Amino acid sequence: MKKLTTLFALLLVCATSFAQQALWGGSPIVSPEIHDNNTVTFRLKAPNAGKVEITGDFLPTKKMKTPFGDFDGPGAADLTKGSDGVWTYTTPKPLMPELYSYSFLVDGLKITDPSNVYMIRDVSSVTNVFLIGGGRADLYKVNEVPHGTVSRVWYNSPTLKMTRRMTVYTPAGYETSGESYPVFYLLHGMGGDEEAWIALGRAAQILDNLIAQGKAKPMIVVMTNGNASQEAAPGESSLGMLPPSMQMPKTMEGSFEMAFPDVVKFVDSTYRTVKRKSGRAIAGLSMGGFHSLHISNEFPDMFDYVGLFSAAIMPDKSVQAPIYDNLEGKLKVQFSKNPALYWIGIGKSDFLYKANEDFRKLLDKDGYKYTYYETDGGHIWKNWRIYLTEFTPLLFK
Amino acid sequence: MKKLTTLFALLLVCATSFAQQALWGGSPIVSPEIHDNNTVTFRLKAPNAGKVEITGDFLPTKKMKTPFGDFDGPGAADLTKGSDGVWTYTTPKPLMPELYSYSFLVDGLKITDPSNVYMIRDVSSVTNVFLIGGGRADLYKVNEVPHGTVSRVWYNSPTLKMTRRMTVYTPAGYETSGESYPVFYLLHGMGGDEEAWIALGRAAQILDNLIAQGKAKPMIVVMTNGNASQEAAPGESSLGMLPPSMQMPKTMEGSFEMAFPDVVKFVDSTYRTVKRKSGRAIAGLSMGGFHSLHISNEFPDMFDYVGLFSAAIMPDKSVQAPIYDNLEGKLKVQFSKNPALYWIGIGKSDFLYKANEDFRKLLDKDGYKYTYYETDGGHIWKNWRIYLTEFTPLLFK
Repeated sequence: MKKLTTLFALLLVCATSFAQQALWGGSPIVSPEIHDNNTVTFRLKAPNAGKVEITGDFLPTKKMKTPFGDFDGPGAADLTKGSDGVWTYTTPKPLMPELYSYSFLVDGLKITDPSNVYMIRDVSSVTNVFLIGGGRADLYKVNEVPHGTVSRVWYNSPTLKMTRRMTVYTPAGYETSGESYPVFYLLHGMGGDEEAWIALGRAAQILDNLIAQGKAKPMIVVMTNGNASQEAAPGESSLGMLPPSMQMPKTMEGSFEMAFPDVVKFVDSTYRTVKRKSGRAIAGLSMGGFHSLHISNEFPDMFDYVGLFSAAIMPDKSVQAPIYDNLEGKLKVQFSKNPALYWIGIGKSDFLYKANEDFRKLLDKDGYKYTYYETDGGHIWKNWRIYLTEFTPLLFK
Repeated sequence: MKKLTTLFALLLVCATSFAQQALWGGSPIVSPEIHDNNTVTFRLKAPNAGKVEITGDFLPTKKMKTPFGDFDGPGAADLTKGSDGVWTYTTPKPLMPELYSYSFLVDGLKITDPSNVYMIRDVSSVTNVFLIGGGRADLYKVNEVPHGTVSRVWYNSPTLKMTRRMTVYTPAGYETSGESYPVFYLLHGMGGDEEAWIALGRAAQILDNLIAQGKAKPMIVVMTNGNASQEAAPGESSLGMLPPSMQMPKTMEGSFEMAFPDVVKFVDSTYRTVKRKSGRAIAGLSMGGFHSLHISNEFPDMFDYVGLFSAAIMPDKSVQAPIYDNLEGKLKVQFSKNPALYWIGIGKSDFLYKANEDFRKLLDKDGYKYTYYETDGGHIWKNWRIYLTEFTPLLFK
């Protein structure tokens, strides 16, 4: 390591008063350490703790009881205390390529790993992440390829009477090419916002890599905020630093869907876009799949490519809104216009599997053409990243 | 609270396996709670802990011993355990308006607050933040004003033979106005990167608010990565998720400064800019102030506005690079061209105070005109946010 001269050392000390413990607290703790064989060691210095566990999505799941039934929750494993006060856990087997999340439990208190600055917020929880490369997961990495631009942009929605925030990916070369690009509208699920696909979904990395490999066309990706009561992600709006919540008004009751033409109008007037149906795709996960279904159905001349990723199909029975009326009649109109792609992806153990099975039967009954992609697992980001890597190469061909 | 129907509840459960404890773990813990009188209560549920403290920059400082001498470090205060296992601490006095950072210490283990998703990374430490509004700190808030666009953009640096990442703020209206804008190049300190001013510096909020109030001209702000060995912030480059470090090669040895024309060339060819000296400003904090001093000095026809925020003045004696030679001679050239503004800001207890005093004497000796702004406190983000709010209104007038 480079010898620190005094000036550098002073800068270092003073600029990082909070970091001092890490700098002079003894030898630094490396966690997670990904070994060459893809086993992973986690470490936590906690000399006073009585019990340290790790919980994460790479561990065998365990049943969790909730008021709504039992679900597969993340499992946990015990760390072992060393004589130096450092607790360790090494996975017994190599981990498969994937982006993983984890937390520690110290005497029952869930904490993030102080040695790992990489964290992702999912609604109201912040967990550490790490990435095992290889196979499909190499699409989730920042590789040495041309990188698109990721922008946080505010647009006006006259329908919702709000200024709202979106995340926009423009492909490498957009700024200077002078060309027009097709647009992929990519929608998040309940509790998410305009940050979800960029953070948990690795959308910018997936697009960069697929485009660089020649597997996807250069395209603009627009990630909106699908909560019609919300201007922007928590902390990014004038509401301040309120805790994020799953329980927001105006999510699956038609407001967002009916206001979607505001989004398309803004994008078409702000970016160099292919301003026709054949240059537009819409897809989303869970609630965003539900939004994609109903937006594309309500505005059948707007999108030629539709993707439902683990989608909810119909709103709760208590919801009354014209957009959800006459589904079959509207599907008849939409499919009479021959969409270039209608794509449905779902996991075998997803709680929405049955609803999607019923929806496919409805499409089959009338001979509507769609592409179906089934995976293992349930209603999880791992699947949504997979669906994005499968769906995107099919667009705008 | 809205009654959850079964579908919503299922979506909620399945989409947030990690959030379940927060959702069904009993009544939610609110932390921090900012009271109407600006006292703040912090809470942590840790029934098994023996001692819980809070450390943060709103507490009285305490002396910390380091190999390089004693420094004022953040203080700590004890939380009190309630019968429900929830520990609490309330500040004895209202806090002044400011963006504050804090962490908990649970039996000596530093952790983030699990009830607060707002965190900022400073080099290798992640701490929670909260904002007390009022006065100057209202400039740090997202207010109901037109918002600029914040983009992460990659540019080519032929001089460094790298593709590199920058953060670019374009003011509200940029996309559709057709006008050209002046450009403010804003540089980070040691251990920082292209994310530092946006996160810790609240640069987008400060610019949005100053522009909306008519106190600053609409301008583009370009936040580069000043570590010439680095493509991008940790985790954002092909190096992967390595731990961030203060000890990077090629930071204060001339490489970044000599390659700076690559940045200006990219910005002038990518954005609608005022492509002349009177349309360009450069400023930075600490190492970034040092970079601003030497870049503006080496290229005296490039920038009409220069800001040194708690700047280092000269490199370590071991560093030999032509850019640092003949400082006085180059200053003579720079000041003979009458820069519109040469601005120096520093805190009274900054360890670089003496170096800046000596530099001012050098400027005074030759009658070079500059603006001087002195604050309390040391080498801290609080001061750098203040300097940004003071410097920006003086630009491009």
